[in-house]
Amino acid sequence: MSSRLKTIMRIESAIMIVLSVSMIPPLLIAIYNGEQKSIYSFLVVILLSFLAGMFLNKNFSHSQYRLKNRDGFLIVALAWALASFIGAIPFYFSGSIPSFTDSFFESCSGFTTTGASILTDIEVLPRSILFWRSFTHWLGGMGIIVFITALVPAFGLNGQIVANAETTGPTKDKITAKYSQGAKAVYLIYIAMTVIETILLKLCGLSLYDALVHTFGTVGTGGLSTYNTSISHFGNIYVEIIIAIFMLLAAINFNLYYVAMKRGIKHLFADEETKFFLFVVFAATTLIGIYNFFFNSFKDLGRIILNAFFQVVSIISTTGYMTNDFDSWPTFSRMIIFCLFFIGGCASSTGGGIKCIRVLGAIKLIKRGITHKIHPNIISPVTLNGREMSNETAIRISNFIFTYIFITGAGMILLSLDGQDFMTNLSAAASCIGNIGPGFNMVGPTMNYAFFSDFSKYVCSFLMITGRLELYTVLVLFSKYYHNPNRTK
Amino acid sequence: MSSRLKTIMRIESAIMIVLSVSMIPPLLIAIYNGEQKSIYSFLVVILLSFLAGMFLNKNFSHSQYRLKNRDGFLIVALAWALASFIGAIPFYFSGSIPSFTDSFFESCSGFTTTGASILTDIEVLPRSILFWRSFTHWLGGMGIIVFITALVPAFGLNGQIVANAETTGPTKDKITAKYSQGAKAVYLIYIAMTVIETILLKLCGLSLYDALVHTFGTVGTGGLSTYNTSISHFGNIYVEIIIAIFMLLAAINFNLYYVAMKRGIKHLFADEETKFFLFVVFAATTLIGIYNFFFNSFKDLGRIILNAFFQVVSIISTTGYMTNDFDSWPTFSRMIIFCLFFIGGCASSTGGGIKCIRVLGAIKLIKRGITHKIHPNIISPVTLNGREMSNETAIRISNFIFTYIFITGAGMILLSLDGQDFMTNLSAAASCIGNIGPGFNMVGPTMNYAFFSDFSKYVCSFLMITGRLELYTVLVLFSKYYHNPNRTK
Repeated sequence: MSSRLKTIMRIESAIMIVLSVSMIPPLLIAIYNGEQKSIYSFLVVILLSFLAGMFLNKNFSHSQYRLKNRDGFLIVALAWALASFIGAIPFYFSGSIPSFTDSFFESCSGFTTTGASILTDIEVLPRSILFWRSFTHWLGGMGIIVFITALVPAFGLNGQIVANAETTGPTKDKITAKYSQGAKAVYLIYIAMTVIETILLKLCGLSLYDALVHTFGTVGTGGLSTYNTSISHFGNIYVEIIIAIFMLLAAINFNLYYVAMKRGIKHLFADEETKFFLFVVFAATTLIGIYNFFFNSFKDLGRIILNAFFQVVSIISTTGYMTNDFDSWPTFSRMIIFCLFFIGGCASSTGGGIKCIRVLGAIKLIKRGITHKIHPNIISPVTLNGREMSNETAIRISNFIFTYIFITGAGMILLSLDGQDFMTNLSAAASCIGNIGPGFNMVGPTMNYAFFSDFSKYVCSFLMITGRLELYTVLVLFSKYYHNPNRTK
Repeated sequence: MSSRLKTIMRIESAIMIVLSVSMIPPLLIAIYNGEQKSIYSFLVVILLSFLAGMFLNKNFSHSQYRLKNRDGFLIVALAWALASFIGAIPFYFSGSIPSFTDSFFESCSGFTTTGASILTDIEVLPRSILFWRSFTHWLGGMGIIVFITALVPAFGLNGQIVANAETTGPTKDKITAKYSQGAKAVYLIYIAMTVIETILLKLCGLSLYDALVHTFGTVGTGGLSTYNTSISHFGNIYVEIIIAIFMLLAAINFNLYYVAMKRGIKHLFADEETKFFLFVVFAATTLIGIYNFFFNSFKDLGRIILNAFFQVVSIISTTGYMTNDFDSWPTFSRMIIFCLFFIGGCASSTGGGIKCIRVLGAIKLIKRGITHKIHPNIISPVTLNGREMSNETAIRISNFIFTYIFITGAGMILLSLDGQDFMTNLSAAASCIGNIGPGFNMVGPTMNYAFFSDFSKYVCSFLMITGRLELYTVLVLFSKYYHNPNRTK
């Protein structure tokens, strides 16, 4: 084995050890509830994963290979694939999910904080298994924060996260430069959000278990629930409001919270991406609220607005929780929701999608394009957060969006081999790459991904991981340049 | 009235005179067939349009205003709107189309070479009216060639047509510089194509009338037929093959034919855009052909391939003729067709859509984006037709595609106010802005646009004109800069 591969394996061994430790809470729940099969499953995976991790770590620790930038892509992509694989084993071993493909899909959906499910009846599963299923969201969310704050700068992957590298406030403040300090703060913010939401949900009368698993799904912008009817199960508007607000918070740039804590809350609302994000939420909620009020027989305005707000936030934050079946709304409202599928959260949040900063950049490019046609010689620089957007940044944003559309289209065509209808394929592909969860028609909020073929489930898993890791981390692995050592710098 | 407006009106008066002269052939057909109502309608419009044109031309000819670049946008957009309006009057006056909105839609669909129709039974209409309906395609196609070859350089609108301005072979050969000579050649090529196709269709046994109207629809990449079942009416594979080939030819850069005639046919196939266009046609035909062969009960391979080829060319050339209802194909094949909706013909052809050159540019940007992630410091210029693609060109392509997607999305949302299903709205918006004609579901190849509300029909008309004039010609008119005289240069 090459020394390069050994070094990479040694890093992946850390993932194995972290996962084995992470399975202790669900193991304890299994023991508490006397869930025999789950106990054995978790025990086996904990032991195997721990031992394998230790073995790899020890045996490969003498490798003298110095990691190169491009190794970072493989390490990160492999980490998510490995976590999805190991995380799937308890589902499969315990017999909760009889097919391994399905188990992998569910685990991958968890770690990528997507929230798409193949389960037709969630509530029959053991509580320990459901806990693990939701816990993968929280771990995946934490993983993304590590990816953004530590790995991206460490492996020189800057530029992947447009916002970090060039455009938003935090960079101006050189936060990414002193990333170790900032990163620590960001982890603490994530943990603090988890604690606060759990307490609030507990105060609303939820059990600690329910409060925890739904908090995992919220702060990780995941969206897997332990109930078939998702958040509407509770029939509690306070729960809905709390979850909606925390989904919103989880989709805002975490670095900004750090800045806001150090320099005052006004820095949070001064950020152009945050303003755009909140504007989209407000506009979409208003349009859907008004339309649903006038074109539905159901006439409780407050309830309609809350439903609209909850689903708008749920989709734009790429969470996917549900209080109201948006696929049964009038076409106009469904169209608005569909557009949100392609926006997503803010950069450096746990939200997925194209990201608000890039959509905002694209809108500014559209405006500049029109102005430029009228006054070809006018100097009209496009600014983002008060800084001029360079041609390089404009091209980087365009590259990303084109790639996103291209991969979504390719995914849609591959899914169409199953013969489902158009909207199912398109929305499933968009939902998976955007880490949202539900889509329309056959994959609508009250439906699931169970009917897809195994091939399609792996296509969806690929889209989930590719979307989660900002496309390039995965795509470069398929480039001929990546594997051509002569061109390695 | 300002002298600026007078000068603009004087130019538009030419459109009125051209249109009144253009209505003489359908008038003669009406007289020949003894279609009373049509005779009166055409006579009235010919007289009114001619007199109004002469009046405007004479009275406003003394204006001393010197046209500015930005006036070009208004002149061109107004020309298409005016032609659509005048062209609609015979439909309405003759009672063939009882609603004026519908008449306008049909005329607009003709002049923009879209081919979307509100007619549920085409064949009951008088032959003179149907001739005029198809003739608008031919006039619209010619109009686009004038727009591309003469108006664009004359009003300094370069850069609107990316290919002309920067990227393709013809520019390298400075054809656009000496545009008057090149333009004349291009008009002659358009007329020659018309004559040749008419003769070939006549040789296949079509009447001169049928041969002419279907040639108009082909060379203009329009797609309106005089038969309810479109080209499948003839049940003649030679007719299908001839029309398919001429649709293909009409969607290739007309400047290249000029270059090919002067320098040899190899210049045609050396062009990167043409190669890409032909590759997409080949790939889509093959994929659809194979899939339809294996997943349909109907097992005539030759027929299936011809159907696939015809529909692929019909959609990518943005014509919209039909020999086989593609909306009844398996989902996979429909998805491939749907992707073609967003590609369109080559630049400087009569085809609409995003255009191959821009899609090719976007694909190259995707590749560069991935390479750049692996080797951030590598110099890997993107080339189009052997020339380096500048950052300016990359941004221009991105601006255009983003604007196209944005307008399509906005159109889709406006159409959804009618309450139709998702796919109908999306494909109708994409079909109108791309000047294709048919879409999916309610606007599928065997359906029409009659069921839409008047509001939606005007939205569609707006999309057709905006798409036909490369977006910016229309969009700049809504910009605040356009109407701010202080910023006029």
